[in-house]
Amino acid sequence: MNVVMIGSGNVAWHLAPALENIGLKVTAVYSPNLRNAKALTQRLYEATPAISLDFSDINASLFIIAINDQAIEEVAKELILPEDAIVVHTSGSQSIDTLGYIPTEHTGVFYPLQTFSKAKKVDFRKIPLLIESEDDFTKKTLMKIASQLSHEVRHVGSEDRKALHVSAVFACNLTNHLFTIAEKLLVQKQLDFNLLKPLISETINKSLTLGPQNAQTGPAIREDLETLENHLEYLEGNEDYASIYRLITQNIMDTYPK
Amino acid sequence: MNVVMIGSGNVAWHLAPALENIGLKVTAVYSPNLRNAKALTQRLYEATPAISLDFSDINASLFIIAINDQAIEEVAKELILPEDAIVVHTSGSQSIDTLGYIPTEHTGVFYPLQTFSKAKKVDFRKIPLLIESEDDFTKKTLMKIASQLSHEVRHVGSEDRKALHVSAVFACNLTNHLFTIAEKLLVQKQLDFNLLKPLISETINKSLTLGPQNAQTGPAIREDLETLENHLEYLEGNEDYASIYRLITQNIMDTYPK
Repeated sequence: MNVVMIGSGNVAWHLAPALENIGLKVTAVYSPNLRNAKALTQRLYEATPAISLDFSDINASLFIIAINDQAIEEVAKELILPEDAIVVHTSGSQSIDTLGYIPTEHTGVFYPLQTFSKAKKVDFRKIPLLIESEDDFTKKTLMKIASQLSHEVRHVGSEDRKALHVSAVFACNLTNHLFTIAEKLLVQKQLDFNLLKPLISETINKSLTLGPQNAQTGPAIREDLETLENHLEYLEGNEDYASIYRLITQNIMDTYPK
Repeated sequence: MNVVMIGSGNVAWHLAPALENIGLKVTAVYSPNLRNAKALTQRLYEATPAISLDFSDINASLFIIAINDQAIEEVAKELILPEDAIVVHTSGSQSIDTLGYIPTEHTGVFYPLQTFSKAKKVDFRKIPLLIESEDDFTKKTLMKIASQLSHEVRHVGSEDRKALHVSAVFACNLTNHLFTIAEKLLVQKQLDFNLLKPLISETINKSLTLGPQNAQTGPAIREDLETLENHLEYLEGNEDYASIYRLITQNIMDTYPK
């Protein structure tokens, strides 16, 4: 099966080679930025960069749109596909209807529930792949490909996928930013972020083992008001951090009323 | 060396047996709640529960106050120690001066930079132990004990320890609560929190490998306003979660201006 990858960002960067590893062939990579398209083709066997969205003459049957959410609809409007091709997007938050502009029934969603950065290798076998399609042929094809890539494949509708995506932002993006805040607070005092690493590892370890509610510790759940006040006083001059501290702390106290 | 543990909470629960593992002997455990004191003595060789803070007749030279921050000063005022005993607290946020009421020079801080829950074993060798004392004898003794427990021992003053503690709350307690929010959002839709586990593992993995700033992904750093608005719309009815989402998202955008 030949694949065209539309996009060259973090998801495309890892998904395209993973597809080649299970025997598919990526023939072309489209990006509005040619240099980015070229960079991704260099990770692939025979792919060439594409500069137009007119694929009417290409020998490919799967088109994967792995780009910013806000650009998907625009690309869907411009895209010209060969007959019977399947086209999917990889977005967690966009409905399958975003592909409604494409004159085919063979539309679907292929959402890898993971965080991707170009600099960090990932193991696709452990990534939950959430598939959606209302078209039987498309669904079967996507489920088959997904099952070869990963041990965890599910059919998930647009509404549930959105719930998962919002939750994923809390559990990943917002969480990671709290580590950034922690690092910045330490840097202000010339202290070493490495000192927090065992704590961070154990936090996650415990949360995944006991479940986050059983793993909660700290001054907020103890209602240790003196420490909370001390910390807010310490954060004077870092008003944004103080607001974030205050808001999550309040929510912890509301979640576990004494 | 004989030790008295004052407190029977999460830190005492793990620290007391760890001290016995390196050859110290815990002779008594004090807690205002006798049942809690008894529960901890059952994890120890010969410790007995203590019901008073008058330890003038006990054969022990190290007293560890491992209790809620707000109770430390009160206990310090009531505590009666044998001659030449060392007394420390284990708090990240309390100054060493909190022990100023105790009529001895041998005061110090013994702060394990880790999250402790009774239900979860920890490996003390990997826990940074942050020591403070202005008294040479105390400092030497604490550094020696700490070095037997852990590979990562540092002398850290009260101000720096407070910075580490505030950062630790961001990196651990607040982070863990974001996992709780993620779980609650999924439960609202009868979705399985296990689906997020590979994402959570990889988030931490990546943050510790690349550093949190290099690991940041998601709609906020992409300034994907459409997705951000979608998510906030999704969170209508969960106003507290929406506020937390909005505030951290704004801080991500401010941290990485386009």
